[in-house]
Amino acid sequence: MRIEKQQLASINEQALPEHRESFAHLEKVLNNKGLQADQIVTKLKDFQVAVPSWALGTGGTRFGRFSGGGEPATLEDKIADVGLLHQLSQSAGAISLHIPWDIPGDVEAIKQLADSYNLVFDAVNSNTFQDQADQELSYKFGSLCHVDQAVRKQAVDHNIEVIKYGEALGSKSLTVWLADGSSFPGQLNFKKAFQRTLDSLQQIYASLPSDWKLFVEYKPYEPNFYSTVIQDWGTSHMLADKLGDRAYSLVDLGHHLPNTNIEQIVATLMMVGKLGGFHFNDSKYGDDDLTVGALKPYQLFLIFNELVDGMEDPSSSNPYPAWMIDASHNLKDPMEDLLQSLEAIRIAYAQALLVDRQALEEARENNDPTLAQEILQNAYRTDVRPLLAEARIQADGALDPIGAYRKLNVRKELIAARGAKSISTGL
Amino acid sequence: MRIEKQQLASINEQALPEHRESFAHLEKVLNNKGLQADQIVTKLKDFQVAVPSWALGTGGTRFGRFSGGGEPATLEDKIADVGLLHQLSQSAGAISLHIPWDIPGDVEAIKQLADSYNLVFDAVNSNTFQDQADQELSYKFGSLCHVDQAVRKQAVDHNIEVIKYGEALGSKSLTVWLADGSSFPGQLNFKKAFQRTLDSLQQIYASLPSDWKLFVEYKPYEPNFYSTVIQDWGTSHMLADKLGDRAYSLVDLGHHLPNTNIEQIVATLMMVGKLGGFHFNDSKYGDDDLTVGALKPYQLFLIFNELVDGMEDPSSSNPYPAWMIDASHNLKDPMEDLLQSLEAIRIAYAQALLVDRQALEEARENNDPTLAQEILQNAYRTDVRPLLAEARIQADGALDPIGAYRKLNVRKELIAARGAKSISTGL
Amino acid sequence: MRIEKQQLASINEQALPEHRESFAHLEKVLNNKGLQADQIVTKLKDFQVAVPSWALGTGGTRFGRFSGGGEPATLEDKIADVGLLHQLSQSAGAISLHIPWDIPGDVEAIKQLADSYNLVFDAVNSNTFQDQADQELSYKFGSLCHVDQAVRKQAVDHNIEVIKYGEALGSKSLTVWLADGSSFPGQLNFKKAFQRTLDSLQQIYASLPSDWKLFVEYKPYEPNFYSTVIQDWGTSHMLADKLGDRAYSLVDLGHHLPNTNIEQIVATLMMVGKLGGFHFNDSKYGDDDLTVGALKPYQLFLIFNELVDGMEDPSSSNPYPAWMIDASHNLKDPMEDLLQSLEAIRIAYAQALLVDRQALEEARENNDPTLAQEILQNAYRTDVRPLLAEARIQADGALDPIGAYRKLNVRKELIAARGAKSISTGL
Amino acid sequence: MRIEKQQLASINEQALPEHRESFAHLEKVLNNKGLQADQIVTKLKDFQVAVPSWALGTGGTRFGRFSGGGEPATLEDKIADVGLLHQLSQSAGAISLHIPWDIPGDVEAIKQLADSYNLVFDAVNSNTFQDQADQELSYKFGSLCHVDQAVRKQAVDHNIEVIKYGEALGSKSLTVWLADGSSFPGQLNFKKAFQRTLDSLQQIYASLPSDWKLFVEYKPYEPNFYSTVIQDWGTSHMLADKLGDRAYSLVDLGHHLPNTNIEQIVATLMMVGKLGGFHFNDSKYGDDDLTVGALKPYQLFLIFNELVDGMEDPSSSNPYPAWMIDASHNLKDPMEDLLQSLEAIRIAYAQALLVDRQALEEARENNDPTLAQEILQNAYRTDVRPLLAEARIQADGALDPIGAYRKLNVRKELIAARGAKSISTGL
Repeated sequence: MRIEKQQLASINEQALPEHRESFAHLEKVLNNKGLQADQIVTKLKDFQVAVPSWALGTGGTRFGRFSGGGEPATLEDKIADVGLLHQLSQSAGAISLHIPWDIPGDVEAIKQLADSYNLVFDAVNSNTFQDQADQELSYKFGSLCHVDQAVRKQAVDHNIEVIKYGEALGSKSLTVWLADGSSFPGQLNFKKAFQRTLDSLQQIYASLPSDWKLFVEYKPYEPNFYSTVIQDWGTSHMLADKLGDRAYSLVDLGHHLPNTNIEQIVATLMMVGKLGGFHFNDSKYGDDDLTVGALKPYQLFLIFNELVDGMEDPSSSNPYPAWMIDASHNLKDPMEDLLQSLEAIRIAYAQALLVDRQALEEARENNDPTLAQEILQNAYRTDVRPLLAEARIQADGALDPIGAYRKLNVRKELIAARGAKSISTGL
Repeated sequence: MRIEKQQLASINEQALPEHRESFAHLEKVLNNKGLQADQIVTKLKDFQVAVPSWALGTGGTRFGRFSGGGEPATLEDKIADVGLLHQLSQSAGAISLHIPWDIPGDVEAIKQLADSYNLVFDAVNSNTFQDQADQELSYKFGSLCHVDQAVRKQAVDHNIEVIKYGEALGSKSLTVWLADGSSFPGQLNFKKAFQRTLDSLQQIYASLPSDWKLFVEYKPYEPNFYSTVIQDWGTSHMLADKLGDRAYSLVDLGHHLPNTNIEQIVATLMMVGKLGGFHFNDSKYGDDDLTVGALKPYQLFLIFNELVDGMEDPSSSNPYPAWMIDASHNLKDPMEDLLQSLEAIRIAYAQALLVDRQALEEARENNDPTLAQEILQNAYRTDVRPLLAEARIQADGALDPIGAYRKLNVRKELIAARGAKSISTGL
Repeated sequence: MRIEKQQLASINEQALPEHRESFAHLEKVLNNKGLQADQIVTKLKDFQVAVPSWALGTGGTRFGRFSGGGEPATLEDKIADVGLLHQLSQSAGAISLHIPWDIPGDVEAIKQLADSYNLVFDAVNSNTFQDQADQELSYKFGSLCHVDQAVRKQAVDHNIEVIKYGEALGSKSLTVWLADGSSFPGQLNFKKAFQRTLDSLQQIYASLPSDWKLFVEYKPYEPNFYSTVIQDWGTSHMLADKLGDRAYSLVDLGHHLPNTNIEQIVATLMMVGKLGGFHFNDSKYGDDDLTVGALKPYQLFLIFNELVDGMEDPSSSNPYPAWMIDASHNLKDPMEDLLQSLEAIRIAYAQALLVDRQALEEARENNDPTLAQEILQNAYRTDVRPLLAEARIQADGALDPIGAYRKLNVRKELIAARGAKSISTGL
Repeated sequence: MRIEKQQLASINEQALPEHRESFAHLEKVLNNKGLQADQIVTKLKDFQVAVPSWALGTGGTRFGRFSGGGEPATLEDKIADVGLLHQLSQSAGAISLHIPWDIPGDVEAIKQLADSYNLVFDAVNSNTFQDQADQELSYKFGSLCHVDQAVRKQAVDHNIEVIKYGEALGSKSLTVWLADGSSFPGQLNFKKAFQRTLDSLQQIYASLPSDWKLFVEYKPYEPNFYSTVIQDWGTSHMLADKLGDRAYSLVDLGHHLPNTNIEQIVATLMMVGKLGGFHFNDSKYGDDDLTVGALKPYQLFLIFNELVDGMEDPSSSNPYPAWMIDASHNLKDPMEDLLQSLEAIRIAYAQALLVDRQALEEARENNDPTLAQEILQNAYRTDVRPLLAEARIQADGALDPIGAYRKLNVRKELIAARGAKSISTGL
């Protein structure tokens, strides 16, 4: 399914006058504060977030999975779904593939298809946390950290194969997330597990094309419930540091212990030029993988405040990070959920762009926490939605993506085309 | 120090045109959604939050205290400070006293003074968590739960005395917060401690004037670090239920374990008509007592969403709750901190008033979490500050309370009047 | 597979002298403290814990499942497995069924089979958290709390059917665990969800045989990640209280927020005679469902300290609780894992039996936390394993259950009999 | 007060026969497992833990402090108290001073006094988290991270002065714990704060004697409640790494977010040779500073399991760590509390020495978590108290330190000598 430009324009039409008025008002308000609305709109248009191929189907928990209908069962369908999201939101211009769930058959055809939706291929993701049907050795007790050298080799080879698929499609980075760890005290020799993981990663790194990056993800628990080999940013950074210049840490918002100050981790990693990628989601308890911004939008803003600070710092050696949504959609229509996530991410980004950084630094120099808080809250409390809407309109997207999605009966059409029982690969 | 009406008017003058424009725009936007801005402004004007007498001085931690200057050393000074806050914000129309820190000498003079600032006396607070200089028996091992009947009697008598002071001043409720608990496994017999606490509370309740309410606060830990007698809302409710119709639970935002769904607790207590009072603050780790809304403004909004739902439900038997700020100000000027808290509370309240409750119920009936989230986020993302400013302007307050506070050099004047070393009672 | 009595005796033989010596030493040590080892051994022999039918297969997470071999695919096989566990440990004399996974076909044959292993049928468990293949209406958005009366009826009817199966087998209680809740703010009307749940439970309660109990389980999150209808013991107790005398709360060790003082909850529920059942497991992060005692054995002891206190209190109105293991075994052989759990439970129970309760109460009366801690730690630090071994030996069980299990090659035989791909129902 | 050797011998006498019997039994049991009891006893005798000078007085919280009597008001008294603890326990052979609370006047006399108790001076601790009466600049907004270069200089100079005091007394390490951080989002520039802290530490490091070590402590929160400059081991390690070979991380058990796997952090730091020091305490909620082993003794054992693994690894480059108790005693007699902590530490150490490391490695190589757990639990469940008692007896300490302390009426004598109102410096 593709949406015609004219369809969206027609849907946008009615609400356009109200948008114009709100935007004009906001433009004036920002102008009074020395901010140029159009510059922010431009930055918003440029800010694209990758959608992972596994997020287009209904997620589940160990207690069950309640699939919706019309899920994309093929890579082509997944690309089409991301294409739809991008048409509506003009902010999902990339897709992130997961191997072996999304092995491309005809690479050229896949590339052309993506291109027809203005999509590029972002980081590729390996999977050594599950056993595939045809797999020789099991990852039950780990992959890159496994005590058995043969298992490690299998996992290393898989990652190298993933790089190959990525190269063919034009990806420029590999994300390694490991479930490796232990569920019981004593099960694992922490030090040896680290060393074996490092050794395996070094082999993968050796196969990394020279213009690629390797992202090392960390996570404190789940699916292992006592320890994980890469339990925190410190461990991830230690590995990335030992691997080399093209290895970076990747921050997933859900991969932290309760109350962690994530924004400080982001700042620290950017300070040393080692923040490579970012996985967006939200959570209340653990790695709940809920819609971005659904629970803690202020924390998201504070994180973007650090991201913008790092990105706009000319002296920073940190590369432009890879952005990806990593959420799971147990109850909502995955497409609607992704639209809400895309909106929440851009809202936080826009708010962070409004922060008066010079005034903030002055408040800090004066030990004035009251004023520093005022500056952040002034930015955060601003209703930035007209900026996002304007960015979408200028790029021929939808004024109200979810409204348009519903008016266009997308899900109904997808079910009609793919069936009510079509199930996507993923968690 | 008192601020002249004309002083504020003159300070407000310059920013008034911009406010008028923003308010007019918001009024129109809300009107398009079927909302009357003026009705919301009226509700905001009516919403008054008590300031506790101990919040006017610099707080501390066990590691030390860094007092600022000009702190109010007398009850009169404390009333004056709350008066200033109320003049500026028009939302702090009550003061909540803590006995024995604020025993009124000349009751009539105190009442007149408060009245001159348009302040009333909200809930009175007892203190059985510290030993006072002249105190006969120690609360080291508890008060209302103490194994020694004589200690319990002393604590009960103290509470009855607090009621007496409150009656004289026109208060209508007593808040009981207990530090009682244990720091080591085995120290306390949980069941006996509960029974003794219930017995003590029953004695206090027996002395409660017929038009008074008793609020039973709960807290999971601190200053005891293994158990507390009233560890959660369930225990508080059990006690309030056994005490009688005029006993209620009191929710303090900082008194919960990590990740607790506080809004559900609020809804549950209101459902059974047993939510009596509310203590506002914010926190990241424990009972951090930070500025309201400084960390988790969306959670605050979700809580207000339940509060408004309960307050606007004609079938609810829950009384109008007592609102109080219970924050501690280690680094900021306490007055500025309170102004920020007052603002954050009203922002959350205003946002909750914008929620389209009928549409929300429909989304719920249709199992449409996407839409339910949209409805809440639409309200939350609205910049409601013009509504608050309008409410203040209409009541002769400051357009920008903190800005006015700084322009008026209030702290400087207070230091000049009271000295740089003046220290307030409190934590 | 059945183990011959003689097989065990022969395996036990070699280690028996060392056991006799250790038991004799411990008997003397305890005797010096005024404790009778044989009385404790008798209590240990009487203490039986139910094994749930779903714990006999390999568990999984949302990231995958790594099944072992020889899992019991039928109810008969499950009973046989519990029978084996009971033969070895002499402490697993009950099985707890889960409907619809374990619907008994020929009831009499099933009862005879269980009886041949000296097993009784403990609480039956309903399942309204998953959709079964032939199910008319979905539980995607809840069951007993669902907005649609037809879904609620389906769930109520299912519970009544579960009672029927239980009656046929001789069970005397129904455990209701609900996944009902919401994953996004706004999704659920907390108050209506509670009321609908209460109404549904009342219908189930009305169908409860007069000698049955109803256990209401609580859980703060998972599979829903924003709210659950029965989020804590307070909510569970509120429901049980409204339901009637035969309704009780059920405590599952993994169903609490970080740092919750569970032992106090246990004491509180027993104080009011409302603790009905107990689910044992252990966890570090959330509802990790790990082997009992694998992470926090001292907490388990503290909980047993309260359980014993309640059970041995002649004035207590609390019924004898229903004990069940509720763990999931992702990495270990489920049978070995259950043997470790059974051992850990009984160790904690034995330690709690050693506590000098009179001295403890005296220490409490004297506000002597040092001594209270000494008393608890003296009990906890005692190596009670000879007591457990003696209880097993006296009952013809294994001196070392896991050792015997391995020597007997049980898993190998099960795989030979059932196949390497045999998969059990469960999570 | 000094205890005569004969006094202890006489107190020990009665319980000695029972001890001899228990030790003999344990010796035999261990022997059957290939373990030499006497070798473990020797290791226990060698294991000495420093007592910090501030732990000898009653601790407090922000809610108050309930001092006991007879607290040591002078450095001489503090040394005497540690001397008593060492006489009783034979495991507290070091004292750790805190400057400026414990500035030695007559250095030689102080050294002689300590020597007369067989005490050495362990790491010295600086204090830049409080303002002292005569201090020029305030640490309200930080010390080593402060925006004002003059404040940083004052803090650096203080640390250098602390080193000087330590050198005079024979200390060989400096522990730097910083309260530096922020309580409100926006208050601090994370990156600049880190850089300033690094710069300050480099200045201190430059003044470090060549045979000294510098320990960099980390802590996630308190007294700052939004961020701390050194929030976790990753940040501490980054600093220690940049500082140089003699800089190390220091782990305090209470300085972690909920559920942190501390043992893995210990293993990781030892792996890279960067674990310098250890602060023992226990906690349920935050940095509760409770008696060691009072809440989570199994976690303590798991940590010691890693410590022993690192210490006994001949290939490890990690230096022998500095051990210190860092607890606070709000309710107990501080001396009794320290005796309980010393006991708990040695119990965990002894249990860790019992672990069959070769069998454990084999279990790991075989992916046998059941067996690995058995091996750890076998060690942990052993009642090792006879080993500790034997070590004490051999060194002329008390068989039962707390029993002896009470029989000798130590607290009563201290109160008689120092007064009921004598208050020690500290928290």
